[in-house]
Amino acid sequence: MDSTKRINRLKEFMKDQSISAVFVFNPDHQFYLTNFKALIYSRPIIFHLQEKTAMIVPGLEETHALEHSHVDDVLVYFEHPGAGRDETSHIEHIRALVKQNPDSSKIGVDLAFIPGEVLLYLQESGYQVVDIGQFIYQMRFIKDEEEIHMLELAGQLVNLAVSKSLAQIQAGITEMEIDAAGNAALFEATAAKYPDSVIDIVVMSPSGLKRSIMPHVFSNTRKIEAGDVIIHSRQVGLNGYRAELERTVIVGKPTFEQEKAFQAAIEAQQRAIDFIKPGVKFSEVDSVARQVFEKAGLEKYAIHRTGHGIGASAHEQPFLRYDHHDVVEEGMAFSIEPGIYIPGVGGFRHSDTVLITPDGCRLITEYPRDMESLLF
Amino acid sequence: MDSTKRINRLKEFMKDQSISAVFVFNPDHQFYLTNFKALIYSRPIIFHLQEKTAMIVPGLEETHALEHSHVDDVLVYFEHPGAGRDETSHIEHIRALVKQNPDSSKIGVDLAFIPGEVLLYLQESGYQVVDIGQFIYQMRFIKDEEEIHMLELAGQLVNLAVSKSLAQIQAGITEMEIDAAGNAALFEATAAKYPDSVIDIVVMSPSGLKRSIMPHVFSNTRKIEAGDVIIHSRQVGLNGYRAELERTVIVGKPTFEQEKAFQAAIEAQQRAIDFIKPGVKFSEVDSVARQVFEKAGLEKYAIHRTGHGIGASAHEQPFLRYDHHDVVEEGMAFSIEPGIYIPGVGGFRHSDTVLITPDGCRLITEYPRDMESLLF
Repeated sequence: MDSTKRINRLKEFMKDQSISAVFVFNPDHQFYLTNFKALIYSRPIIFHLQEKTAMIVPGLEETHALEHSHVDDVLVYFEHPGAGRDETSHIEHIRALVKQNPDSSKIGVDLAFIPGEVLLYLQESGYQVVDIGQFIYQMRFIKDEEEIHMLELAGQLVNLAVSKSLAQIQAGITEMEIDAAGNAALFEATAAKYPDSVIDIVVMSPSGLKRSIMPHVFSNTRKIEAGDVIIHSRQVGLNGYRAELERTVIVGKPTFEQEKAFQAAIEAQQRAIDFIKPGVKFSEVDSVARQVFEKAGLEKYAIHRTGHGIGASAHEQPFLRYDHHDVVEEGMAFSIEPGIYIPGVGGFRHSDTVLITPDGCRLITEYPRDMESLLF
Repeated sequence: MDSTKRINRLKEFMKDQSISAVFVFNPDHQFYLTNFKALIYSRPIIFHLQEKTAMIVPGLEETHALEHSHVDDVLVYFEHPGAGRDETSHIEHIRALVKQNPDSSKIGVDLAFIPGEVLLYLQESGYQVVDIGQFIYQMRFIKDEEEIHMLELAGQLVNLAVSKSLAQIQAGITEMEIDAAGNAALFEATAAKYPDSVIDIVVMSPSGLKRSIMPHVFSNTRKIEAGDVIIHSRQVGLNGYRAELERTVIVGKPTFEQEKAFQAAIEAQQRAIDFIKPGVKFSEVDSVARQVFEKAGLEKYAIHRTGHGIGASAHEQPFLRYDHHDVVEEGMAFSIEPGIYIPGVGGFRHSDTVLITPDGCRLITEYPRDMESLLF
């Protein structure tokens, strides 16, 4: 990962905006800027940039940060003082760093993620706090060559896992077991292909009329029954970059309403995929999909946006949402996933991950989307 | 879950402190107070309490919140306006709620989790913002009967998963495959025993001299080799409550330094387990474990606290840390896990989950801790 280029871009922005120093709290922003990603965040981890870059980490992340983060300094706080290593809180490091700035300097932070007590401390110390979170999100909009390669590899893995999970679907199996089959295939394939790699999995298979209309719920031990609608939803991250693939399947013969909703979800997705290209607005992509639901009289069941950016985060900006009017650019990556959730009928959503090309988009996920392939 | 009792306790605190209204952002606090837990938090979810309780949720969580949250009102914001459902941001709901309070009222928030923009909005609107996060943590210290039962069930599951994972250890298998074996057993057991249940898994098996000294890293595709030290670390949550069990194992014959470190980690844990009981200070438990490392000349490698509270969160207060001087009480639940991480030798940590009884503690996790059982 080319941290230097990213850091330099952030430095230029700081110069333009007369920002003296920056503290970043969002773990995904930190990963983007430094390549460092922790597993558990009950202990604060903070990226700092003034002249030099630094990560503030707890003692138990010191070796990890030294090995993986592309920063000039690793500043450590400990859970027991001693041997000249006497900082026992991240706040002590923040204080020491911020005091290097003249009074009332502009300090950039990602406002959505800064803990309230740190924000209050900066304010009370007389610094002018400005949000730089949105700028970092924008830096992340356009994926570079290495990121695109990572997304493509993640796409191959999610394709494999979804096909293995869906192959298990039959009456009597539980939602969790559907997920587990794909997970097992992933562990095997990743171990064989990518030494010293890390995968992240987000997977769920809400099933039945009651659960499939809830777009985000953990899979549980409910057993699949004939007549169920199931939304199998999966993201796989390989070394920090993610792709998403989701399919709605029906066990047995769909009802008339289910068939209609299924076809509408397919058509809405296809129209959005055909439409998206550099120059169109995020909101227009949402609108194209939503029009399909409107025509089918199902728009009120379309309770979420048509898609979201994807990369280092599970959901990241830009959002394909009715009120986001900036334009699509080459190198962006999106999930395209219009969905409808109809009480008594079921939930219907198909998601694929696309990369924006000079004149359209390229799918990096694949699984058949016709109804016949998705009846089990 | 008895939400009413918990809400009433929070109301009493608000009355004592003259707090007019409360907004809670920490997902685990929300779960504790309302039984509602979302899967993904890229869209804000907020608990509110004034006279009545409310959850502010995005449109795609409406059904989920109505089904699972014990609140008076579910307030929804949408990703497309229409049909009289025109709020499209959580901020609109926060504004409407907070305006019911007289100017300069005290508004309680969990300061560590409130997004900066919401904190600034409350300040700029002239409200007095006070932290109630610590009070909610304290409410969660002592587990009630139902929570203890949930922790015990989680303990049984983590025991099963760790034994299945460790049974796989041999040269040639990857860290991820070790984890997967326990996961598969969990999926099967949970499906058979607990209908309509959700499990959360945090598992890692950093292996070898370089990786085992990093306490928190995702398992990767590294293959186990003879001579490896492996810390197999696992938490299992059943319907939101978690237990933790961790064992350090050695593949083949340990070196003299490894044997010494292994025995010190075992002894430190045993001493802390024997010592902990109502009335002793959190810091004293840490000290008892740390003294074992000191005597062995290994204290500088003890880079984290001796343990942490556990329940709805992976790590929660109280912390068994050198500078936390409150006392242990009956009904608290802790991980006991002193650890040492020695470059060139390996990492050594054994964790068990204990419930505090009237005169000591009771283990709810189990796996042999003697060296012989942990050589593979």
